[in-house]
Order: sequence, then C-alpha cells, then structure tokens
Amino acid sequence: MSENNNIDYVQKFKNFSKFYIPKIDNFIEQFIDDKKKNAEYDFINNMYEDLSEYCTRDGKRVRPLLLILSYIGYKNRFVNIDKVIPLGSVVEMMHSFLLIQDDIIDRSETRRGGQTLHLISQQKFSGYSHIDTVGRDVAFILADILFANSLEIISKIDFSKKVKDRFLKIFSETYEKTAWGQILDILHSMPKNIDVKENIPMKVSEMKTAYYTIYYPIVMGYILSGKNSETELLAIKNFAIPLGLAFQIRDDILGVFGSEKKIGKSADSDIIEGKMTLLIQSTVELLKNEEKSHFIELFTKQQKNSDEIKIIREMIQASGALKETKNKHKKLIEKSRSNVNKLSIKKENRDILIGIVDLIKKI
Amino acid sequence: MSENNNIDYVQKFKNFSKFYIPKIDNFIEQFIDDKKKNAEYDFINNMYEDLSEYCTRDGKRVRPLLLILSYIGYKNRFVNIDKVIPLGSVVEMMHSFLLIQDDIIDRSETRRGGQTLHLISQQKFSGYSHIDTVGRDVAFILADILFANSLEIISKIDFSKKVKDRFLKIFSETYEKTAWGQILDILHSMPKNIDVKENIPMKVSEMKTAYYTIYYPIVMGYILSGKNSETELLAIKNFAIPLGLAFQIRDDILGVFGSEKKIGKSADSDIIEGKMTLLIQSTVELLKNEEKSHFIELFTKQQKNSDEIKIIREMIQASGALKETKNKHKKLIEKSRSNVNKLSIKKENRDILIGIVDLIKKI
Repeated sequence: MSENNNIDYVQKFKNFSKFYIPKIDNFIEQFIDDKKKNAEYDFINNMYEDLSEYCTRDGKRVRPLLLILSYIGYKNRFVNIDKVIPLGSVVEMMHSFLLIQDDIIDRSETRRGGQTLHLISQQKFSGYSHIDTVGRDVAFILADILFANSLEIISKIDFSKKVKDRFLKIFSETYEKTAWGQILDILHSMPKNIDVKENIPMKVSEMKTAYYTIYYPIVMGYILSGKNSETELLAIKNFAIPLGLAFQIRDDILGVFGSEKKIGKSADSDIIEGKMTLLIQSTVELLKNEEKSHFIELFTKQQKNSDEIKIIREMIQASGALKETKNKHKKLIEKSRSNVNKLSIKKENRDILIGIVDLIKKI
Repeated sequence: MSENNNIDYVQKFKNFSKFYIPKIDNFIEQFIDDKKKNAEYDFINNMYEDLSEYCTRDGKRVRPLLLILSYIGYKNRFVNIDKVIPLGSVVEMMHSFLLIQDDIIDRSETRRGGQTLHLISQQKFSGYSHIDTVGRDVAFILADILFANSLEIISKIDFSKKVKDRFLKIFSETYEKTAWGQILDILHSMPKNIDVKENIPMKVSEMKTAYYTIYYPIVMGYILSGKNSETELLAIKNFAIPLGLAFQIRDDILGVFGSEKKIGKSADSDIIEGKMTLLIQSTVELLKNEEKSHFIELFTKQQKNSDEIKIIREMIQASGALKETKNKHKKLIEKSRSNVNKLSIKKENRDILIGIVDLIKKI
C-alpha cells in the first residue's frame, strides 16, 4: 500500500500489467506462429521457435504497457484495444532486437532467466562451420528478423495516414536516439580513463533509458490516440525524463549496493565490468587529489581483485557519492510525481503512472 | 555495342545510371548533412560524417536504379521523380546497413575502395576502452542508425495510405528474406562438411541475391507506381530471379577463375574462405568416390596452402563443374532475356533492363 492517502497506486499498475501482459505475449506468439506456418524452409521454422521463446520470456513489459496505457488514457472516444496491442507488441519485439545486440556486445550468457540468443545459437550451430563466432553471427541477423517483422506489423495496422506517418517518425526517432545512447555507452565501458567534464553517464541514461523506456512509449500511445499537441508532448517529457533517470539511478545503486537476490546478478559485476554510472561520475567529482587519482586508477583497471572491488565500493560510500546519488534519485522522483498532474490524461491512467513512480521510489 | 540488332542496350543502362546515381548520392549526402546540423552532440556529428562517406562510396547502385527505373516504367501519368529518389536512396542506405554487418561477420578490411566501417571505428576508438572489439561494436550500432534513418525518410514521403502500406510490407519482406539468406550463408561458410542433398548455394543465391538485388527493387518501384497486379508480380519474378541467379553465378565463377584486376580481390580468396557457391555444389555433385571425398576433404580444410588451392581449382575444372555452371549461367540469361518481353513496362525502360541482362551475359 502506498502511504499517502488511501489509493494503492502500485496495485493499480499491477492489475493493469496482469491484464495486458498476456495480450502482448499472445500477440507475439501468434504472429511468430503464423510466420512458422508459412516458413519456406525448416531452418526458418526452427529459428522462429527460438525467437518466440526469447521474446516472451518473463519481463516487466514496461514499454508496451506504457504505450497501451497512454493510448487508452489520451483517447477520447472509440478506444480500440485491438488496434494498439499489435503496436505494443512491436515495441516489445524491438526491445528483444536491442537485447540480442546488447548481449552480443556485453558477451553476456544469461538474459531474463534463460541463455542469451547468441549462446543458444552457438551451441546449435558450432558443428556447422569452422568460424568460431557462428552463434554470434546468426543471433546478430536474427535480431534483424525481428526488426523486419516489426515493420510488417506496422504495415498492417489500421490508422489514418497522418497518424501512421507520425507514428513511423517517432518509431524511427526512438531507435535512432537509443542507438546513439548505446554507442556513447560502448565508448565509455571499461574506460581506459575517466573524464568527468562532460557528464557522459547522464547523457547515456537520458538516451538509453529515460527517452527509450519512458518518454517514447508514452509518446507513441499519445500519437496513436490521434492527438499531437506540442504542449502535451512537453508535459510528457517533464514527467517521463525525471522518472526514467530515477529508474536508471536506482538500477545503478542496486548494481553496486543491492543484494544478489534482489538484482539477479552479483553486486560486484557492475564494478568488474567498469560500468560508467552516475554513481561513479559523482564519486570522481567528489574525490580530491590523490584519492581521486587512486579511485580512477583502481576503477579503470582491466582486472580487479576482490580487495580492489571492496575498496572501490567503500570509496563510493566514503566520498559521499552514494548519499548524493540517492538524493538525486529522491528529487527526480518528486519532480516526476509532481509533473504527473500536469498530464491531460484520464485520471484512471494517471493513477497507474503514479503506481510506476511509487515502484521506482523505493531503492 | 550489343550485337543483336542495332540498339546499344548497355549504353542505355549506362546513360540511365549516369543520370540517376548523382541524384541518389546527393539525396543521401543532403539527408545526413541535415542530421549533422541537428545533432545533439559532437560525437553524433562526427559519426554521421563516417556514415555519409561510407554510403556514398563508388558503387553500381543497381538496387536504387532498378527501383527508380521500375517506377518510371510502370507509372502511366504524373511521373514524379522527386517522390522516388528518396526511396531509391533508402534502398541504398539499407544496402549499407547490410554491408556493414556483412563486413563484421566476414572480418573484411576493405569495402568499395575504402576501409570497412568497423576498422575505421576501431582505429578511432581503441584508445577509449579496454574492450578490444569497440570498433566492431560501434559499427554494429551505426548500422542500426541507417535503418532508423530509412524509416524516417519513409515516414516523410507523400504517397497514398494504400501504396505506403504496401511499400512498407514489401520493404519488410525484402529485409526478412535477405536476412534468412544471410543466416543460411553463415551456417554454410567455412563448412566442416559438405552435403549436396539440399542445394544450399542455390537457396542462398535466390534469397541473398536474386530476390534482394533484382526482384524486390523492381517490385518496390512497381508498387510505388500505384499498381498491384498478381500477374505482373509473377512476370517480374520470371524476369528477375533468373537474372539474379545468373548474376550470382557470374560472380562465383569470377571469384575462382577471374583476374585479380577484374574482381578487385585475389581469385584465391573465395577458395580460402571456403565459400559454398553453385560452382562448388556442382563440383561435389559431379565427382565420384575417392575424388569426391578428396575434394571435400581439401575444401573443408580450415587452412589451405597454395598447392591445395591450385588442386581445388583444377578439380573444379576437371570435374566438368565449370562448364556446367557456365551453361547454367547461359540458360538463365536466355530465360531472363526472353521473359523481359512479358513485362508490361514502357519500351524505353525495358531496353534499359535488357542492358543489364547484356552486362551480366559476359563472364
């Protein structure tokens, strides 16, 4: 139960999720099933099987849920859920497209409780070719299949020309901005040096999380409702960006100070991987002189032993960066919570958005 | 000069190319220039520079040319070139999307007379990160930028809703089929064994070359002309698929028996890379008993010395595979040359198509 007044916003979000997640997953399953039925060759059928399993693994489905919620909340009359479920599913399939690529780049072995797609493919096909990256190469192209599938679904949905053109424009913007965020992230992962002049982690968090996960899905739903006001788009931005940043900061803090049980991976891994987060940015900003250079030296080491990991974690705390970052998180949550009231969305759907804010509030 | 009658079809194609290639390249340059002007950060500006250089390197531009030619040839009235130049350019940008991926998979160092994009990125950014594949990872995501850009251009062009939906559907089909062809190709590159029961090289050539390079670009132009007859789509297929296969076979033969000067790479490289072509398929089909197993053993070796390469080349010839494959090429050219007359396209544009057939006729 949320504490302020008697409305349980989190429960409202959970009910919404529970109702719509199966619809999204069913659409994806059904779509891929049809593709399998019409597959020209057996290997296509077989690989679609893997894609279907991968795309429908347990997940929060926050992006498609936000798209659907926003469409319903902004549409005045004739709310037609069947028209937006496919587009919510597209956003989820495109998320899988990015996850497959992400996992290849990060050389990850697990994703959403299963093996990564490049690992599955490597096991299946390593007997075929002398090329030792055959699994990675296949997974890489399987991601492209999901992108082609997404366009097929978009080509079939029934919206006016104007709405469809606007949607395609926003769709393109979404994956362009996210890609630039990804590139900036790649350039500053396992960094050989740290320069805090430009706040790189803030830019990456904005592009790769705040815009991608919160802002664009809400905008897509809004556009699909038939509306297109600059004022409302700004109101959405003022709500979505602080929420997205708070979400990323929470993730960054849990990545270093969370329990393994809660985050599903070792709390050492972000430090080992040299992940440049707002927490690290803040640590370097706060430390002075030798302490600062010592921290940078430790953090930019390619291999870190357990003592060094421990020291890094202690320095983050002792520098005041943990406190400062938690504070930043709190302020962002407050900003987002206050801006939610400026959205001209139906009360019912606003309440669900508050539920998301409440969920991200607790670290 | 083509020999049959007095029309120089090849010259007609060359004139058409000379007129339209600068228009395609200018559109891409202008589009990326605008993106650079509006870039939020310097690194985006800088990377668009690389993309612009990469996308406008010298090339035959056969796909955008076919799209434009087909649109003009099928459109009865109101031919508006300005409406299809952007879509021709999209097809070329998507080709760059695939080339970037191809080069990463093949670990190639040069493309169209310049360095591959992953190599350029590696040189630029290896100082940033301990991760030794940073250039590959960046190039991989830069390809996604081109795909997002393509959707932006599509969202802005002015066609009826019906035509646009059909175009998007065909666009999706194009990159789906090509991706499956690419996957099949990956699975049979540097093979550990060769099984000729299924004719894999034929399937790959169909999907990765014939459909992708010839059929779909013509269909896209046809759809954009406003027409959509099943009969004509079949006539396009009957012309395009033989032509595309002939093109691939010509490439395969030159890849083993061509001069380095003509093909721009060593004529050993296809053998070294263990490229499964129709020529290899035919060799294995024609050889018997020990000769067959000896050939497979040599060809599937991961490392081949110059003697082995020489023996492989000799066996391809001695088996009769070279002759058979040249014959296949000749028959496909004849089929395509005869089917071109069944297209209900304007004579002027048909003549240019004949010019392409004539160009591919000579090995």
